Amino acid sequence: MKKLSILGVTGSIGTQTLDVIKKSKGELKLIGATANSSVKKMIEIINEFDPLYVGMMNIDCAEEIETYCNKNNKGTKVFSGMDGINKIASLEEVDIVLTSLVGMIGLEPTIKAIRAKKDIALANKETLVVAGELVMNEAKKYGVKILPVDSEHSAIYQSLRGNDLKTLKKIILTASGGPFRGKKLNELKEIEVEDALKHPKWNMGRKISIDSATLMNKGLEVIEAHWLFECAYENIQVVVHPQSVVHSMVEYTDGSIIAQLGAPDMRLPIQYALNYTERKNLIANTLDFYEVSKLTFEKPDLETFKALNLAFKAGKIGGLMPTILNGANEAAVEMFLNRKIKFLEISEIIEKCMDVFKDEVIKSLTLENIIDLDKKVKEYVVSSI
Amino acid sequence: MKKLSILGVTGSIGTQTLDVIKKSKGELKLIGATANSSVKKMIEIINEFDPLYVGMMNIDCAEEIETYCNKNNKGTKVFSGMDGINKIASLEEVDIVLTSLVGMIGLEPTIKAIRAKKDIALANKETLVVAGELVMNEAKKYGVKILPVDSEHSAIYQSLRGNDLKTLKKIILTASGGPFRGKKLNELKEIEVEDALKHPKWNMGRKISIDSATLMNKGLEVIEAHWLFECAYENIQVVVHPQSVVHSMVEYTDGSIIAQLGAPDMRLPIQYALNYTERKNLIANTLDFYEVSKLTFEKPDLETFKALNLAFKAGKIGGLMPTILNGANEAAVEMFLNRKIKFLEISEIIEKCMDVFKDEVIKSLTLENIIDLDKKVKEYVVSSI
Repeated sequence: MKKLSILGVTGSIGTQTLDVIKKSKGELKLIGATANSSVKKMIEIINEFDPLYVGMMNIDCAEEIETYCNKNNKGTKVFSGMDGINKIASLEEVDIVLTSLVGMIGLEPTIKAIRAKKDIALANKETLVVAGELVMNEAKKYGVKILPVDSEHSAIYQSLRGNDLKTLKKIILTASGGPFRGKKLNELKEIEVEDALKHPKWNMGRKISIDSATLMNKGLEVIEAHWLFECAYENIQVVVHPQSVVHSMVEYTDGSIIAQLGAPDMRLPIQYALNYTERKNLIANTLDFYEVSKLTFEKPDLETFKALNLAFKAGKIGGLMPTILNGANEAAVEMFLNRKIKFLEISEIIEKCMDVFKDEVIKSLTLENIIDLDKKVKEYVVSSI
Repeated sequence: MKKLSILGVTGSIGTQTLDVIKKSKGELKLIGATANSSVKKMIEIINEFDPLYVGMMNIDCAEEIETYCNKNNKGTKVFSGMDGINKIASLEEVDIVLTSLVGMIGLEPTIKAIRAKKDIALANKETLVVAGELVMNEAKKYGVKILPVDSEHSAIYQSLRGNDLKTLKKIILTASGGPFRGKKLNELKEIEVEDALKHPKWNMGRKISIDSATLMNKGLEVIEAHWLFECAYENIQVVVHPQSVVHSMVEYTDGSIIAQLGAPDMRLPIQYALNYTERKNLIANTLDFYEVSKLTFEKPDLETFKALNLAFKAGKIGGLMPTILNGANEAAVEMFLNRKIKFLEISEIIEKCMDVFKDEVIKSLTLENIIDLDKKVKEYVVSSI
């Protein structure tokens, strides 16, 4: 039996992870879980999964849950605030921590989990975007595995299985192209939030849905892949593949390409990460190639979807530039979701921040500097509108 | 440095293997080589690769080469006949034997090589078709690897890399569909030898080109895959994929599919097998997904291409039935190439033989019984026309 904590248990990935646990027939056990403020959902989880510990970011919500537990004779211990989240991330009893927090808030608990020698199932891509070097070095130092949960990175991880990373020549990262594939700049001027949230292939949270619409999601994945697989940016190719059947590929030095394919269902990469190195039985749909019939591939339109280029640029500059990129993106996406800016302004704001803060890039890559700069960039974005 | 023998060095696979050796920068060394009767080509090979031993099936040809070697002070020793081929297959100095003989004649030297503890790079699919159980058992007993050289089986082998064979759920064997894909039975009545030899994607020998046109090639590959990967026939799916970019796929118990893709160049699987487990540097073209643009998949037309169904049937019956299937096919293809029968008669003859010899199926699966029955079937085919 593998024991796990889920950071961000009430979100899209968290909920799907609970389904994986349910279908594991007792092979996976939920020990700890955290959420921001979803009291009702967390109480349901306590009733169904009986975790030993839960953590709520919001202190009032934590108290509400504690009261519920006392009243109903639940043994679950309740923590609160960032300290509470960090506690759940580093529990003695836990083997593996799935981090599905949204945004760069996931960084600190991930580091805590690594230092407590927990393997990490990583669904929080911003963590590697802002602190890839730091996180991978800590993982090496503490001997823990960073197991990707993104479907693309899981595909790459699976395609690399049994091979020497030295023979990896190129990563071919596939992208669905998002809801606006094929559209030109002038067609994107008056995009509404509702349009941007309609992803053609994946059912995801709000922030990642907007990132998919701008292609920033793919940009963040490029940086994530760079760190996970020690691959130079020059050797990462983004290919638009609207059917989302090929989840990504790797090319080896001998010209051979290995790809991972499957139904677009996040429970597959979640299950793979949680049970690694074992493959378990099917819990999702399977693909039938008599029905798949056609897979297409095309070059991304970087003129229209500037965010992808900005991510490549930030990654290549390195240092704290990805922190600036990510911070500006998080703030801008939130403002777009709150209807304070237009769709195309998201990438304009990111580009501006990368210029305004460019002198900060050379600061040393410490957790403190990352958190400080992220805060500064976000404040700048909010104040400058 | 890996030392190898090539059985069938002057054929299509043999010639491409020599190119792999040439580009290996001394990491591969040709020690032994055999051919049927191509004296001129063999002399060129002796001059370029300086093998220690060669074997010619034809005794006169062997003498001709010996004379040449003596006259030109070549140190190459020359053997002849089946004994000579078997000697080259089991040389003390050799690490790995590539068998690219065409047809069931490859069986005996393959067994000899296994018993001499040589790893086998297998390009001679008929060997596993007629004697899969025997060959795989001998390989296990003598601790040698059977490394597939067929592009499809190499793809499967690569897709299984690092995974437990117990988690293999299904093999998805891709087929180009051959030169007559999309045609119906009545359009195939008057096919000429020249039409059948024109394969759309691969440049191959004559026998395998005809097998590709009837889809028997895919049928033989199904039986080969059954033995190589211990996969039930029910779990082998043939998918027509005209672009020949996806060389084959495997589906795991968790629903994940791993595929191997690459340019249609036999030097890739040859290089992979000869250097296994290492991947070496590119010697062929690479794929660019900005140019690939479209991959399609369809169900094979089993009404028109009956040979594929016959192979599945023979495989499922088991015992000596695949020997009957293969013997009848070898004889019928030769008669078609000699313009003695029509294209559609190939599968008719096979079906008839599977009925005529059905009582022989239960005989025990020994090398002698296989060779005897193969001979009987071939004689029957020739005499009955």
